[in-house]
Formats: sequence, structure tokens, C-alpha cells
Amino acid sequence: MSERNIRVERIDRRAVEDQEVEIVERKGIGHPDSICDGIAESVGSALAREYLDRVGKVLHFNTDETQLVAGEAAPAFGGGEVVDPIYILIVGRATKHYEGQTIPTERIALTAAREYLEAEIPKLTFGEDVVVDVKLGEGSGDLQDVFGEEEVQVPMANDTSFGVGHAPLSETEEIVYNAEQRLNREFAAENPYLGSDVKIMGKREGDSIDVTVAAAMIDEHVPDMDAYVDAVASVREYVADVASEYTDRDVSVYVNTADAVEAGSIYLTVTGTSAEQGDDGSVGRGNRANGLITPNRSMSMEATSGKNPVNHIGKIYNLLSTDIAENVVSEVDGIRDLRVRLLSQIGRPIDEPHVADVHVVTEDDVDLETVRPEIEAIVDDGLANVTDITQRVIDGELDTF
Amino acid sequence: MSERNIRVERIDRRAVEDQEVEIVERKGIGHPDSICDGIAESVGSALAREYLDRVGKVLHFNTDETQLVAGEAAPAFGGGEVVDPIYILIVGRATKHYEGQTIPTERIALTAAREYLEAEIPKLTFGEDVVVDVKLGEGSGDLQDVFGEEEVQVPMANDTSFGVGHAPLSETEEIVYNAEQRLNREFAAENPYLGSDVKIMGKREGDSIDVTVAAAMIDEHVPDMDAYVDAVASVREYVADVASEYTDRDVSVYVNTADAVEAGSIYLTVTGTSAEQGDDGSVGRGNRANGLITPNRSMSMEATSGKNPVNHIGKIYNLLSTDIAENVVSEVDGIRDLRVRLLSQIGRPIDEPHVADVHVVTEDDVDLETVRPEIEAIVDDGLANVTDITQRVIDGELDTF
Amino acid sequence: MSERNIRVERIDRRAVEDQEVEIVERKGIGHPDSICDGIAESVGSALAREYLDRVGKVLHFNTDETQLVAGEAAPAFGGGEVVDPIYILIVGRATKHYEGQTIPTERIALTAAREYLEAEIPKLTFGEDVVVDVKLGEGSGDLQDVFGEEEVQVPMANDTSFGVGHAPLSETEEIVYNAEQRLNREFAAENPYLGSDVKIMGKREGDSIDVTVAAAMIDEHVPDMDAYVDAVASVREYVADVASEYTDRDVSVYVNTADAVEAGSIYLTVTGTSAEQGDDGSVGRGNRANGLITPNRSMSMEATSGKNPVNHIGKIYNLLSTDIAENVVSEVDGIRDLRVRLLSQIGRPIDEPHVADVHVVTEDDVDLETVRPEIEAIVDDGLANVTDITQRVIDGELDTF
Amino acid sequence: MSERNIRVERIDRRAVEDQEVEIVERKGIGHPDSICDGIAESVGSALAREYLDRVGKVLHFNTDETQLVAGEAAPAFGGGEVVDPIYILIVGRATKHYEGQTIPTERIALTAAREYLEAEIPKLTFGEDVVVDVKLGEGSGDLQDVFGEEEVQVPMANDTSFGVGHAPLSETEEIVYNAEQRLNREFAAENPYLGSDVKIMGKREGDSIDVTVAAAMIDEHVPDMDAYVDAVASVREYVADVASEYTDRDVSVYVNTADAVEAGSIYLTVTGTSAEQGDDGSVGRGNRANGLITPNRSMSMEATSGKNPVNHIGKIYNLLSTDIAENVVSEVDGIRDLRVRLLSQIGRPIDEPHVADVHVVTEDDVDLETVRPEIEAIVDDGLANVTDITQRVIDGELDTF
Repeated sequence: MSERNIRVERIDRRAVEDQEVEIVERKGIGHPDSICDGIAESVGSALAREYLDRVGKVLHFNTDETQLVAGEAAPAFGGGEVVDPIYILIVGRATKHYEGQTIPTERIALTAAREYLEAEIPKLTFGEDVVVDVKLGEGSGDLQDVFGEEEVQVPMANDTSFGVGHAPLSETEEIVYNAEQRLNREFAAENPYLGSDVKIMGKREGDSIDVTVAAAMIDEHVPDMDAYVDAVASVREYVADVASEYTDRDVSVYVNTADAVEAGSIYLTVTGTSAEQGDDGSVGRGNRANGLITPNRSMSMEATSGKNPVNHIGKIYNLLSTDIAENVVSEVDGIRDLRVRLLSQIGRPIDEPHVADVHVVTEDDVDLETVRPEIEAIVDDGLANVTDITQRVIDGELDTF
Repeated sequence: MSERNIRVERIDRRAVEDQEVEIVERKGIGHPDSICDGIAESVGSALAREYLDRVGKVLHFNTDETQLVAGEAAPAFGGGEVVDPIYILIVGRATKHYEGQTIPTERIALTAAREYLEAEIPKLTFGEDVVVDVKLGEGSGDLQDVFGEEEVQVPMANDTSFGVGHAPLSETEEIVYNAEQRLNREFAAENPYLGSDVKIMGKREGDSIDVTVAAAMIDEHVPDMDAYVDAVASVREYVADVASEYTDRDVSVYVNTADAVEAGSIYLTVTGTSAEQGDDGSVGRGNRANGLITPNRSMSMEATSGKNPVNHIGKIYNLLSTDIAENVVSEVDGIRDLRVRLLSQIGRPIDEPHVADVHVVTEDDVDLETVRPEIEAIVDDGLANVTDITQRVIDGELDTF
Repeated sequence: MSERNIRVERIDRRAVEDQEVEIVERKGIGHPDSICDGIAESVGSALAREYLDRVGKVLHFNTDETQLVAGEAAPAFGGGEVVDPIYILIVGRATKHYEGQTIPTERIALTAAREYLEAEIPKLTFGEDVVVDVKLGEGSGDLQDVFGEEEVQVPMANDTSFGVGHAPLSETEEIVYNAEQRLNREFAAENPYLGSDVKIMGKREGDSIDVTVAAAMIDEHVPDMDAYVDAVASVREYVADVASEYTDRDVSVYVNTADAVEAGSIYLTVTGTSAEQGDDGSVGRGNRANGLITPNRSMSMEATSGKNPVNHIGKIYNLLSTDIAENVVSEVDGIRDLRVRLLSQIGRPIDEPHVADVHVVTEDDVDLETVRPEIEAIVDDGLANVTDITQRVIDGELDTF
Repeated sequence: MSERNIRVERIDRRAVEDQEVEIVERKGIGHPDSICDGIAESVGSALAREYLDRVGKVLHFNTDETQLVAGEAAPAFGGGEVVDPIYILIVGRATKHYEGQTIPTERIALTAAREYLEAEIPKLTFGEDVVVDVKLGEGSGDLQDVFGEEEVQVPMANDTSFGVGHAPLSETEEIVYNAEQRLNREFAAENPYLGSDVKIMGKREGDSIDVTVAAAMIDEHVPDMDAYVDAVASVREYVADVASEYTDRDVSVYVNTADAVEAGSIYLTVTGTSAEQGDDGSVGRGNRANGLITPNRSMSMEATSGKNPVNHIGKIYNLLSTDIAENVVSEVDGIRDLRVRLLSQIGRPIDEPHVADVHVVTEDDVDLETVRPEIEAIVDDGLANVTDITQRVIDGELDTF
């Protein structure tokens, strides 16, 4: 066993699943805030990969500040058009000069943003519906040589920060998370009228769950109001089906409740995102690292997307604590609710947090003491392999929002 | 008694003050994220006041997306200089045309930003050390006539959202909050070397509190390294004194711990903010509406600064729930910890939330049932006078970060 | 005969061909100033065509202010890369709202710019090597309904301005103009190493002509220094051949004379334009409406590209006077040099200029009086059909730079 | 006598003063193009002075590309307001790093622009009515050490370019130039309603001169339409008086002829410049180096403002040739019209132009041969002291537009 300061305690509250009121939200990949998160993270990963490729190590960068300024659009049944383009400004720092080499950081950023948008929001024509600009300052150069060397070293914490992770997801969380994911993949593949800007809020009061969906419809595939009403109904039905896979509680699904169909005021878009008309966005304002906004749970304010995965302790600890929490729950029986919190201390190696505190709610018939050693071992192992998180981020295997 | 859905319950956890580990953070007014919050909110209030002045009601606007791109500076003992200016982009929506009048929304925004910066970060020469640009789209016009009419009407909720407030502050929270406030007012007034970018993190483990301060020093008033070391010591001493006013626990204060004095690597700045060199910022990434980041408490991800105080339910409910919590604690004896959460329902008047749930930890000798009526009455009264929040925001009386 | 104020006079100087010293310059299509001219004009034509298509008439616009901010590149034999993108800002005015319709002026502009760049400077990857942004203000709306109605009316002059045209081209002018055109079309098609940024200056002293060519080479197609030297030699030889088609005078051709081959300082680029590295550009700073810069001839400072072809008198008169001059020379024998100058009077129909003055140098054996009626008739006819110029601009048939 | 290639010849045309039709234009200091010229030049001079001050020599820079995007304003009798700010983007290259020093080029540029605008267009509140942004790339570093060393060396020409100057001014030129200057200085000092955006066009046909003035009036000082009509009349009268000082010919003065007083369509502004409403601007599109646009004379297309005065041959030769022309005319009797043209040869010292050709029209009773030696001596002397031009530009003693 290591010398790491790992504390495992019984949490002094009910499991989230057992609380009276629960609120959960997820902003889909086409939401303006998520677009910013996605670009920021794809820019960051691209920089990391290029650094490794060109100089053999990840140099200093931080690109966690993309800003989206909404456009103006004129949607119409059968197909309208974008009037003023969305403007996206990629902001951050990156090391451009290293040992005589010039790394084209701004072009790398633009290319990554382009590829991300074309893959995830294909309805947005790059350079026409959306203008992407970039302002990357020079990195400080101080934090350069920490990753990618022959012998990987564990870097020192660059800040006093913390990360937090939870597992398992509650039923409401499962519904909210999976409904968005499956709407955007499975459902949209067969129903091209559904835009990527799907925002889902789940509210549970006792055993009654309300799922409220705001789903941007794409005008090109909605010929008239009847088609729109049908589309809304299909989304509702699909989400209800998804929900039933995760719960036996009563679920009510509401889709586009702000619509005034009579008045013709509906959620119709040209591109499938509200960014086309009036909704600005930025990084770190939406989903936390586990893909959800969960006011019933402890959350970090840290923006995870776009940060350097080598030494940005807030990013690493948010992803790692989530990873550890999921591992504990999948490997140890009898855990009803678990929170992992990692607190850094500036200047210490990041695999030795100031404290790793784990709060557990066990099933009624499970004694914490019997599972404590297992939990501690998993936490210890996660910390020992902290650089795996870095590698998985660079490889694009971990979601950050 | 009203028909409002107010629930007062015993909370199923220990008071934050009694939890084993507590983490609290505050970003001072000169932190890049706070600069954005401050500009966003001052722009929003200025728009609201101008609308009232010009057309007698607050028209639709939302200016919660200011983005700051860091500059580059060359600080030096005795006075260095800004090399590349900070760039600030004010982003949002505002109604520019109303019944034949044109409201100069962009110029109002620029003027408000200028006045805010000159008042709060006077070391930044506007237009030279910092470039402020603005992109305000047109508002939708839908939500225009909701405030300022002869008879004030309670507006309808524009979204499904929630706000959360807490009281009283824990000792650690008091220390963190007040140390920053008093450093930036009292201390800086007499010690001009202290910049406005003061970031404080408090960590309590049991009865031991660590206060870590990152304080940007202003080079013009720091002639040499000895002076710098003295300045750091003075800040440390001052914060320790402040802390002792709020707690009897052991407090350790650390200031600028990342310094490497030997190597000459210290936290010296030209303008008193890290925005001058590499630290970008944006709205809603820092302090919550009560001025703190408190992962031990339920938090809303909603950015409060810059939002329309008439109908933006997230903003109103965050401010109102905090206000209610403080009122309950100041008026009702025996409350050890209290959380107020307000949940809106789209389309219902905002004084009738879907649910107002109040979770209380009482002192050991206090029975919740004896104080319940008082609490309910205060909550009910707060909701009944929800438009007071709007007025106080417009008058600049409520802090939003 | 019309009542138009047409004056035909003998010019009081030698023909340009007969002057002792002559200077002529042409910036090729890939020169930063020409890129701006090209984008401005393509944006303008696209707007005109869209207006005709959508509302049946050309509404007010003016897009003659594109600004290019150079990028940074790292060319290398065999293929380097763009490091910082070129930034292009399309600036101007356009009517966005007309009788209830919204015309997506900014998107039209972006699309036109994209298509222009992809067609003319294909080495620039849109959105990666070059960022195109747009700021189009609203037009005044005053000058809207002047073109495209069932019955075409001749618009009134909107300004006091003038245009000037010349014919025939001198030998030096022919060489400079055609060398650039043929290098960029014919030669580049077979020799992909030649970039589009070809700048040619011709100087004639007596019967000796120097042609100085600055030709950006594309690194991808230049494997090494020998290849570069060969490429330069091929361009020199090609231009010498072209020149010999237009003159019997002595011609010396110099290509990339600023090169220091020994020192490795050569004109190598990634994209074929100096805009990739340090050379900014804007509209109206390069070639005049006839494609040349000719200090030996009277020139208008008016930027022709991007202006509204319906009522912008400076644009129309520059194009029309050039057209008239060419027509006179092709139809009337014995003209050695001819200048047509059209002066508008604000508020008068543009087919009735304040004065149309034609200065003629005839061949020695030709009496001006014998050709005067022919010349007057051609001028009169050109003015009578002034709206043809507008149509040809909209159809993209007239070059403006 | 030097070995310089100086040619003095009789010009093969009438003096401009004797030509039948003459056109002259001047854009006043508040015209959008002139604002750009003024900022570009003040930024350039400020950089040159700072370089001299900090490193003892002028480093490479070029700032001749300022772009102005017009704002939107709502003028009203007695005082209206700017609605959307003017946006000015300073574009160019400057050397930021030199021998370990960092020169704050962007801040220098912003400060210079601010000071220029506050001095020349004081009605524009910096940062509110006008946003000034800056994008200065790094200079190439090649052309650094050419001016300011202990022993001033004459630099080599960096380009094949030419400059042209004329003297004396014709009567029409004198009227146009001086009317603008005196309106903006003398008249405006006593009549605060006159804005700085005064555009004057002079047309002479034979002995009849029309002077057309477009003068932006400042609404704050114009209480009503009568006051406006009076203001226009005062300007007309003043210009007529100025004109009579320079000519005995018939002069007609027209002021704001595009006004439709009945319809209330007049040239009223908030800030005294049309940049506030719809008129964009850029460098090098307005006045030539001698302050005028003179299609009757040979002109260079080169933008003079903002260019490096040490080695930018186009700038230096335009200023020097004008200076030489004026010196010749003031020192040599009997010159009726004179044109000096200086042609550089890349790589040769700039005091040894490829050719300096001087074309002279003498008074009828003066033989060119008698004045030739004097003229040659003055030209030779001007070239020998070419670096004086550089110094005077840096000292702000030479106008460039």
C-alpha cells in the first residue's frame, strides 16, 4: 500500500437516488456552450498530438476559453437560411517556438475546430454559416517538458485545485444522459429533422420524474406544421422509451414546451442549433466533466475542456475522480452512492494529492469496513496511474463535457 | 398564507461547518473571470437603467458572455509596462429599436465597461492597456414589456431553471470572502502595491484552516525584491488578522506560494491583474452569486452576471434564494445551516415557483417545527416581493459574483 | 446627335509611347492588394445578383473596403506550412431588410469570398490558412430602387466624381499586363511552382524596356535550390517571349532580383502569395480599373472594386471611360493615344455628364477634324448605353483591377 | 557635381494652370480615409521615436494599413448620439523583440492612435464612440539597423518604386488645399458647429472655378434648421473669401449641395465626421503626399502614411520629390510648372536613384538652359540630404496626406 493520503468515510447524507428532489441537466453537443466545450477540447487534443509528433513532448498550452457569438437565422418550413454567421473566437495560450522549431499553433487550432464542426454539426457550413477566428497568445514556456519524454515523469501540481467524481449515476441522471446521447446518435441518424442542440432537464420529486426536452428541429426536413408536430411527438415517444430502460418510476416527457404552435412560434432552426439565432456560448458553462449538471452533487467550477491534460490539475483530477468512482462501483458490490474528491497541493507530484477523500453510501446490508480495503486499493491504483488519464485525453478517448 | 409550494425540511446531512473537509474559493475583483463578471453586470445594469430612462420599461437584453483575452506584460521593479493590450469582447443581445426610437446599446455597453474598469481596475489605461470591443446582436423583441410599466406585473418564467442560496456563511467562507474584500478595499488603499487580482482558497480539515492567497503585486510600488518580500509578509499578516476575527480555529496563511524568490520568479505585475499576462477570463466561470465557490454546497452553474434582472429566472432565483436564506438566518434563531432552492416552471409567474424547498439544519436544541412557520413566512414574503430583486439589481445594490 | 457635353480636343503632349520615360506596374491576382480587390468585387457582384434574384432590383450596398492582415508562414523546399492564418475582414454596407424580406448579406459575402479564393488562390485552405470575417453595416436605404425594375431608368449621379480611361495600351503596358495574365493562366497551369502573387514593373527609357518580375514560388513544387533557380529562369524566359510579341524594342527581364541565393534568402512561399508572410493588403491600393498602375497617365484614385455598379459614379465612369477609349481606338483609324475623362454632376442623370472630354493624339497624317464626328458618336453611344456597364459588372464580365 | 543621374527637360505639355480643365480634390482631416492616414502616420512616427529612444535606432516596421469600419449615429438638432461605435483596426508589422528587449509595439500604437484622435477629432470619445483595435505582426527583422546609428548611413532601396512631386500649386490647388486647412483651423475655432470632415473638390474650366464643399455640421452646436442654413451660408462665404486670396478668376462656391432642406435631409452629424454613419475608410485612398488628389498631374499610388521613413523608398521619394519641387520653385525664378520624379533601383543607395527626371515648363521669357544648373544643384542637394526627410518625418514635421 502506498503512502497516499486516502480517506474513505461514510457520507453523512442519503444517496442522491433516495433524496426527495433531484435535478439533472445535460446540454447536447449542439448547444452553444457544448459547441465551445467541444471545440476547446478538440483544439487542445490536436495541439497535444502535434507537440508529441513534432517535438516528442507536450508543450505548454491552455485553450479553455472559446467564445461563441450567436448569429441570426431565418428558418422556414422546407429550408430557410442563416442570415448573419455565428462567430467563434478560439482563445488561449500555446507554445509556438521550441528549440528552433515553429509550431503552427493557430492553424492547428483552426483545423481542429473545422474538423470538429464538420463531424459534429455538419449542418453548419464552415466559413459561411460560422466564422472561426483565433487568438492564441504565447505560452509562458515554464511548463514545457513534462510529458512525452522517454521516461514519463509524474508532473507537479501547478495549482491548488480539486476534482470531484461520482458513481453510480442515479436513474434520473441515466435518463438525461442517455436520452441526449441516443437522440443525437441513433434517433438523428434515422430522423434527420432533429438538430444537435438537444437540451434535457430531468426533475425527480419522489418517484415521479419529469423529463423536459428542448429539441431544435431542422427546417429543411420539416415541410410544414403538421410535420413539426409529428416530429415533436416522435422525440417525446423516443425519450419515453429510453427512460423506461432506466427506471420503473413514473416518467413524464415534455418536448419543446415553450412552443406556441397556434401562433407559429416553434423551435425551428436552419442548422439544428440555437447558436444560429441569439444564443451565445462559452466553455465551462455547461456540462461538468461527467457530462451532466447535477446541483444535488458536489461540483467543480473548473472548465475541463481545452485544458492541458499533462499538468492542469483541475482537469486531471475531475477526470480521474470520475474514473475512479466508476471503477469502484463496477468492481465493488454494495455501493449505493460514492463521491471521490481529489485535492491537489501545489508543488507536490500529482499522484500524491493533499487528500483523496472518498465518501460512500453503502447498501443497507453492506458494512463499509468490509469494502474499505478494496476501495482504497482502487483509489491508490488510479492515482498511481494518473498519467493514463493524460494519454486517454490526448487520444480523444475521454469525454470532457 | 399564500398558495405557494414551499417545503421546509430537515436536511439529511451535517452542517457544512461540521463536515470534516471544507473547500472555499473566491476570485477577487481583478481576477480575469471577475473582470468579465463585473463588466457583464455593469453593462447589463446600464442597459436596464437606460431602457427605463428612455422608454419607461426594461427591454429584452442579455449580456452574460464577456470574453477576456489576456495581454502580454513586462513587469519590472519600480515600474514595467504592458506590451500587448488585454482584449475584451462584450457579447450579448440587446433591443436596439423600440417604437421608433434607437437605443445606442453598443455605446452604452462600452461606456459602462469603461466606467467600471476605471473605477475598479484603475491601473488599466482604457484603450491602451485594454481594448474593449463589443458585439451585441438584436434581441428577439419577444420579452420586452415586462418591467417598468406603471403597474409592475410579475413576469412569467422564461425557462425551467433553478437558483440556490445558503446561510449562514461558515467560518472558512467568512474568512475567504472578507479577506478578499478587505484586501481590495482597506488594505489596498494604504498599500498601493497590492493589485486587485487577489485569489483566495480556504481549506478546512477538522479545526485546521489553511488560507492560500495569490496576490498580484504592482511593480510601480515595489522597488526591489526586499520590498516584494515585505509586501508578501504584510499581506500574510493582514489576512491572518482578518481570519482571527471570524474563527477561533487554527489558521495558517500562505501568500504567493508559487514564488521562487531566489530565481526571481515572483507574482509581479504592471497593472495588478494576471489578465495582463496569459490569463484569459470569461463570465460565469468564477464566483457564484454569493461571491464564493463552495463545492461543499449545492451550486447553480448559471452565470448570474449580465443577465436581464427582469425575467431571467436563473439570475433572479439565485439572488433571491441567497437573499431569503440570509433573511431567515438573521431573523430566526437557532439555524445552523440553511439551503433555499427555487425551481421555476416555464410559463408560470416567477413569484410562484414550481417548488421552493428549504433544507434546514437547526441547532441541537431547536425543533424545526417551532421555527417552520417563521421560515415559511419569510420565504413567502421574499417570493411575493420578487420584483424587489430586479429593482436592486438595476440600482446596482446586489453583487452578482 | 444628343445634347451631351462632349469635347474632343488634341492633347497637348506626346503620346505615352513617345515619351522618354515610362513606368507601368501590375499587381497579379495573388498580390495582397489584388486579393482584396478581387474579394471586394466578387462580394459586390454576388450581392447585386442576389438582390436581383430576391427582390427584382439592386438595393444599396458598397463593399469596397476589404482589409487583409498578413499571416505568418514557414516555407520549406518540398512543402512548408502556414503558421498563423491570414485574416481578411470584409467591410462595407448592404441593405439587409427590404419590404419584409431579410437578405442574408453577411452570409452572401462570406460565400462569395470563399468561392473567389477557392477559384483564384486554391493553395489557400479556407478557414485554416485564411480566416475571413465580415462587418457589413446596414445601408442607408435611400438609394435602393434604381436598377432592375421593369423599365430601366438611368440613375442620378450620387457624387461629384470623375472617371478616366485610356487607349491604346503602350507596348510596355501590353507587356506588363499580358505577362502577368499569361503567367497566371497559361504558365502556371503547366508549372505548378508559380504562385499567383506575381508583381510586374515595366520601365521604358527611350527604346529600352526593363521588366522586373517578383514571382512567389510555391515550395511544395520546388524540391531544392537548383529547382528554384531553374524556376526563376523559366519565368524569365517565358516573360521575355511574351514581351517579344508586343515590341521590337530591347527588353531585359529580371525575376526575383531581391533574392540572395547564396544566403538562402529567396522568394519561396507555401501558398503562392506574400500575404502569408508579412504583406498586408487593402482595396483600391493596387491596379486601376484597366488593370494597370500608370503614373504617365491621368489616374483616378477611386477604388473601383466592390462599389455598387448601379449608382456609384466613380466606378461606372472609370469602367465606361475605359470602354469608350477602347472602342474608339478599335473603330477609328489613326489614333495614337486617347484619353477619355467623364466628370459627373451631382443630381444629373449619369448619362449626361457635366463634361465628357476626350483628348486625342493622332497619327501624324491624320487630321483630328476628320475623325472627330466618329469619336463623338462613339462617346455619345457609350453614354447612352451607360447601364450596359452596370449589367456587365453584375454578370462578372468586366475586370475592375 | 555628383554622379547622380539627374535629367532636366522641358515638359511636353502646357502648365496645369494653362490647361482647359482642371480637377482637384482634398479630403479634410476628419474624412474617414484621412482619419486612417492620420492614425497610420502617427502610429508610425511614434514607433520610430520609441525605437530611437529605446534601442538607438529605428527598427523595421510598416503600419500603412489602418482600416476604419463606420459606425451608426443618430444626429439631432441640439445634440444626438452615436449608436454603434466606429471600429478602427490598426494593421501592420513592427519589431517587438530586439537584443533582449521587448518593445510594446501594440501599446505604442494604441497610445499614438488615442492621442491623435483626441487632438484632431476631439468630438470622438475614445473607447466609446470609437473602438480602436490593433493587429501588428512581427517584422521580418531583416531591415533593422539602418537609421539612428552614430554615423548615419544612407540605406539601400528596398524596392523598385518611384515618387513624384510638383510645384508650384495651381490657383485651384491653392484654393482647395487652403480652404480645407483654414476651415479646420481658423474657422472651426470660432464656429464650433463645423466638423472636421470637410471634403473639397475644385473644378476649373478655363477661367471659371467651381469649389464644391461637403461639410459635416456638428448637431450639438446647431439648434435648428435655420441655424443649419446659416452655418452652410457662413462656410460658403468663408470659402469664397479664402478663394479670392488665391485667384482673380471667377469662383463659385457650393456647400452641401446634396442637402434637401425641405425634406430635412441635411449633412448633420454628432461627431463631425461621416465615419459615424456609413462611410468606411482606409489608408492611401485619399490625398497624395502633397495633400491633394490631382488627376491632371502624375500621381503615385503608393500610400505614404504609416510607412517606415528610413527605408521605404516609395514614401521617401514622394516626400523628397515634393520637397525638391517646392525648393526649386522658391529659389529659381521663371518656373511655371515643374515635376520631379525619382525612380529607385533596388539595392542601390537611396541617394542615388536610377533616374531623377525633372520636367519643367518655364515662363515664356525664360530659357531652360539658363536655369538648368540651378535646378540640377537643388535636386542634387536634396538627394544628398535624403536622410533629412527621414528625420523630419520622425519629428512629425512633414505632412503625408
